[in-house]
Amino acid sequence: MATDSACAIIVGNEVLTAKIADANGPLLARRLRARGVPLCAVHTVPDDVDAIVEALALARRRARWIITSGGIGPTHDDVTVRAVALALGRRVVRLPEMEALIRDTWQVTELTPAALRLAEAPEGATLVGVPGAHFPVLCCDGIFMLPGVPKYFALQLEAVLATLPLEPLTLRCLFLSAHEHEIAQALDAVALENAHVAIGSYPVVEPDACYRVKLTIEHVSADEVAKVLERLKKELPEGSVISEEEPKRAG
Amino acid sequence: MATDSACAIIVGNEVLTAKIADANGPLLARRLRARGVPLCAVHTVPDDVDAIVEALALARRRARWIITSGGIGPTHDDVTVRAVALALGRRVVRLPEMEALIRDTWQVTELTPAALRLAEAPEGATLVGVPGAHFPVLCCDGIFMLPGVPKYFALQLEAVLATLPLEPLTLRCLFLSAHEHEIAQALDAVALENAHVAIGSYPVVEPDACYRVKLTIEHVSADEVAKVLERLKKELPEGSVISEEEPKRAG
Repeated sequence: MATDSACAIIVGNEVLTAKIADANGPLLARRLRARGVPLCAVHTVPDDVDAIVEALALARRRARWIITSGGIGPTHDDVTVRAVALALGRRVVRLPEMEALIRDTWQVTELTPAALRLAEAPEGATLVGVPGAHFPVLCCDGIFMLPGVPKYFALQLEAVLATLPLEPLTLRCLFLSAHEHEIAQALDAVALENAHVAIGSYPVVEPDACYRVKLTIEHVSADEVAKVLERLKKELPEGSVISEEEPKRAG
Repeated sequence: MATDSACAIIVGNEVLTAKIADANGPLLARRLRARGVPLCAVHTVPDDVDAIVEALALARRRARWIITSGGIGPTHDDVTVRAVALALGRRVVRLPEMEALIRDTWQVTELTPAALRLAEAPEGATLVGVPGAHFPVLCCDGIFMLPGVPKYFALQLEAVLATLPLEPLTLRCLFLSAHEHEIAQALDAVALENAHVAIGSYPVVEPDACYRVKLTIEHVSADEVAKVLERLKKELPEGSVISEEEPKRAG
């Protein structure tokens, strides 16, 4: 597991009860990938303090950055800020900067208790500005707390990504005519020799496919990927490699 | 958290690296819901023994049944069976019944070591037959190990669901004209009084929507849902409830 990886926590009763399909996790996976930041897990948990705290504890052992989605509104089921504070052993405080922003945005002088909850944050939290948006991203100890509404999640995510280092991965593929069990021995040997390079094996089940297995080889170094690719070509059963590009069906 | 709930573990480097969008988690959420089994979390983790063991440990504290997706093929990245065995403190053994099935299905007398890996299971595992499929579902201590290929996942899932009790939930909704922060106080009070009933609050952000917040009320007892619904109607700010059906836009 890379040290500089990210983990996602989707706070979502509505996802677990199949009311909506989560769009934020898949978007995060694509955008982190484009940026070269490995995503080491996505935990979808209920709007429940204990469940979020547990997921945060797990994520903090694995990832440098954690991105949460949802649970930061003003109602009883919005418990992400409280859970982050608990997981970090910090108090919940009200950020004067956020209070001022809410007053300005809503054009009111007095805020209701519910509205004031939007200004709450774990003690020591900082704000990451979002170009083109009223509200900044709440961040504390590498945990970025994003809203669950996909439109705002996407907007805030770009501001978060801009703060992370950029190191794109190289990905190359091999398309094979052999079944997975016929290549397993050679593949295992090469994978064991090159544990630092991510090698994936994906069988195709459609009977009319032009290949039976797709191998993926990934690393931040293009040289390492090329080395493993050559090694695989040498070790895999003779004649089993069709191409490095996805074979097209005739006709 | 209901005791008789389920948890999903998606073993999926290909999901975390955005090569594919996971279809198995969303399908599982829909099918469990139709069957009335609460889904308490979905953990998407890499094809990595430690990560799967950690997720299993977390899931076992929360759920009675665990459904895993992926990582049960014959290659180096297929480590789900080993991880389940480790999480349960059991040895990995070869199931003679599975060996025989593989021999019959592939019509061979001698199996390669890679093929034999498909017959491995945590000690004490049982097999759940799948109507219309060659291979059964591997099950051990309430953990069902399903394949990641969506077609086979869907087929095996139905066989798993048929073994679980059936207790459909009642869901009713309220569509409101008020903003979430305007209803938060009333909503919090009703939710606190009725902690056994799941109440969700979902703001709409589209400026041209016919309502501002959708409330969902859910429980296995229709009576409990009706009671909470009436209580909410009484406690919410006057005039804020538009309807129980989704309002349609004029024109």
